[in-house]
Amino acid sequence: MSSFDAPTVIRIKRDGAALPDAAIDWVIDAYTRGAVADEQMSALLMAIFLRGMTTPEIARWTAAMVNSGERLDFTDLRRDGKPLALVDKHSTGGVGDKITIPLVPVVMACGGAVPQAAGRGLGHTGGTLDKLESIPGFTAELPKGQIRQQLSGIGAAIFAAGELAPADRKIYALRDVTATTESLPLIASSVMSKKIAEGARALVLDTKVGSGAFLKTEQEARDLARTMVDLGAEHGLATRALLTDMSAPLGRAVGNAVEVVESLEVLAGGGPPDVVELTLALAAEMLDAAGLDGVDPAQTLRDGSAMDAFGALVTAQGGDWDAKLAERLPVGPHTETITAPRDGTMESIDAMAVGLAVWRLGAGRSLPGERVQSGAGLHIHRRIGEPVSAGEPLFTLYTETPERFEPAMAELDGGWVVGATASPPRPLIIDRITSGD
Amino acid sequence: MSSFDAPTVIRIKRDGAALPDAAIDWVIDAYTRGAVADEQMSALLMAIFLRGMTTPEIARWTAAMVNSGERLDFTDLRRDGKPLALVDKHSTGGVGDKITIPLVPVVMACGGAVPQAAGRGLGHTGGTLDKLESIPGFTAELPKGQIRQQLSGIGAAIFAAGELAPADRKIYALRDVTATTESLPLIASSVMSKKIAEGARALVLDTKVGSGAFLKTEQEARDLARTMVDLGAEHGLATRALLTDMSAPLGRAVGNAVEVVESLEVLAGGGPPDVVELTLALAAEMLDAAGLDGVDPAQTLRDGSAMDAFGALVTAQGGDWDAKLAERLPVGPHTETITAPRDGTMESIDAMAVGLAVWRLGAGRSLPGERVQSGAGLHIHRRIGEPVSAGEPLFTLYTETPERFEPAMAELDGGWVVGATASPPRPLIIDRITSGD
Repeated sequence: MSSFDAPTVIRIKRDGAALPDAAIDWVIDAYTRGAVADEQMSALLMAIFLRGMTTPEIARWTAAMVNSGERLDFTDLRRDGKPLALVDKHSTGGVGDKITIPLVPVVMACGGAVPQAAGRGLGHTGGTLDKLESIPGFTAELPKGQIRQQLSGIGAAIFAAGELAPADRKIYALRDVTATTESLPLIASSVMSKKIAEGARALVLDTKVGSGAFLKTEQEARDLARTMVDLGAEHGLATRALLTDMSAPLGRAVGNAVEVVESLEVLAGGGPPDVVELTLALAAEMLDAAGLDGVDPAQTLRDGSAMDAFGALVTAQGGDWDAKLAERLPVGPHTETITAPRDGTMESIDAMAVGLAVWRLGAGRSLPGERVQSGAGLHIHRRIGEPVSAGEPLFTLYTETPERFEPAMAELDGGWVVGATASPPRPLIIDRITSGD
Repeated sequence: MSSFDAPTVIRIKRDGAALPDAAIDWVIDAYTRGAVADEQMSALLMAIFLRGMTTPEIARWTAAMVNSGERLDFTDLRRDGKPLALVDKHSTGGVGDKITIPLVPVVMACGGAVPQAAGRGLGHTGGTLDKLESIPGFTAELPKGQIRQQLSGIGAAIFAAGELAPADRKIYALRDVTATTESLPLIASSVMSKKIAEGARALVLDTKVGSGAFLKTEQEARDLARTMVDLGAEHGLATRALLTDMSAPLGRAVGNAVEVVESLEVLAGGGPPDVVELTLALAAEMLDAAGLDGVDPAQTLRDGSAMDAFGALVTAQGGDWDAKLAERLPVGPHTETITAPRDGTMESIDAMAVGLAVWRLGAGRSLPGERVQSGAGLHIHRRIGEPVSAGEPLFTLYTETPERFEPAMAELDGGWVVGATASPPRPLIIDRITSGD
């Protein structure tokens, strides 16, 4: 289809120039077909990591990844005779970030329809699918017909990206093993290619900032959010973003089954205030983006309608649902407790340290395709600003394989401080970025 | 053997830091064993390309590559009861650079012993082995016993690097397909790991400068030469370098069999003056480095002793040798001629354009392991500064596959100029760099 070859394309980026559109189209297509080798793509990814990409390059790269597979379209579906309010949310990845689990049911209960292509975790951040798969029987491998049926029937489907943007799937796996993950152009194009292909009409991004996020500074996160909002607009996907704090873990539970348990608390009207706040803020954005006004997302947590929606979703996807699900979730079985060395106040808990500890406990992968432990995770008994008495439990660690306690404790070591006073908490929601800005 | 993993090592270099010794040792060993994947090594190579390496890093990287295989040792060999004067030469690669072919016999005839691990060509520069293998029967796949026998018996062996520095062999193949060839740390470590392992005691480098070289500027070539001289010294290999011009091709013949024919002209006391000049300059350096004083290399071209030495070498390595070898070499069979468009003077001939044209004719490879055409090549009828009459032949092109003429002519197009006057020629030998500097 063209006279490009991989070394020529790599050389252009290596030397700091912008890749021509035709070179991007060629290399994404050839890599998807296997005509460009993994070692060539990984050299190109490192060159992109170090040289960057212009806005038009990122747009073309994203479009090429969308075009490497199918773009789902649910605009023909109807519910009560009306088109669906197709809206989704994506988080750039954090520690303890189970927000999707209460959020999707809230939006369902408010009349939205959520087609969510979700990912499995890799590295220190967890994956929504890994968490949901701790529910016995739950599956994310949904045939397209079932996704359509769930959207028009119950208002959501959470599925593995599968055939969407296959170029991204190959590139994503490479990035993790070649240390080319934390790159704005590569993050933005990876997220948006899947989200453009999944068939939503509106998208709300939760862009994380802080030690537990892939991008550490507020400016980087802001640039990433702006880039993704603009990419969405170019492809007819109305996109807006919240910039949210990820310097400390979200909630008190980090892991797989433990995060589902905490999500069930939120759906029952309780749960940690930060998880509730972020769930409702993102729900409000999604409902506004989908044109669903006059509905109160907080009401769905009080009246049980969000919990019912979650039950319908779990049941539709094969999960073994009943009111006592939380008690049946496989937390543990082995536990280890870290206690307070002195009286005082919990001064800080570093999200990255907690993320790595939970990953060491078995909740995450070091290789794509690895099985994760549903039971692995951690509870935070004293959050930042809470008083601490010497000897009382600060963290409980869970794993299926007790030899993992030692490396996990080593990651956690130095990642929290009990001191005299805590600084006032950072606001959870830092800013809001829309395409009108 | 250590707690490194490939992403951690890549991340260090990606972020611009120096790799610790233990990380270098680990990654070279793990890559040689297959425990680090090609895609991980190529990301690391691109990071090295763009971030560079410190002098101590290059030294450790080189040592690790030497240690990935066997280091040959010929110091126990004797000839007439005396230890051998083990000395070798390496060129960083140029166009028309057949110098090894007359040079090794000259040094043999002067009493030196040359253990040369030689390479095959990749890209626009030819490989000595590809040229020598155009001699019917000639082989470079020599068992170690035969190398030893040739060194003590006739004074030279030219062999494929094979088991020497296996890490370099794997990395070299990757660099070509991932556009990470033209990097000082990677060139220096690749050359010197093989040369340190091959068993010479002294080494003369021919470091090329100009359009046909891998590094284009004199400063880059000078830095490369200095780095390699220092690397040799650290490993007990007394190394010095000449900096030589590679803006125009060496001699009148570029390709495989055609370069052997031109080399035979030099060995018979004739040949292009630049090829003779560089052969004798490098011979003088090699003899000096090996402590062989009081011998005149030019005499060996006049008295036939260098030609006899070449015959002995070709014969020892299976080649079909006699005085009429030149007539039997497979040049062609298809030819195409480019004629002068006007009267004037040949103003310039670009080495890179000629190198790429000959590569297109089939003399080189685009993939490792590809067969090259012995007959492919090019003759330069009018060299820089020579008068030209309209209509007379300037270049003759040879190939076994005539469909290759068109792309070859396209590479040559714009690569030469017939004008009013030529600038005075650049000196062939630009500088000399020794470890004493």
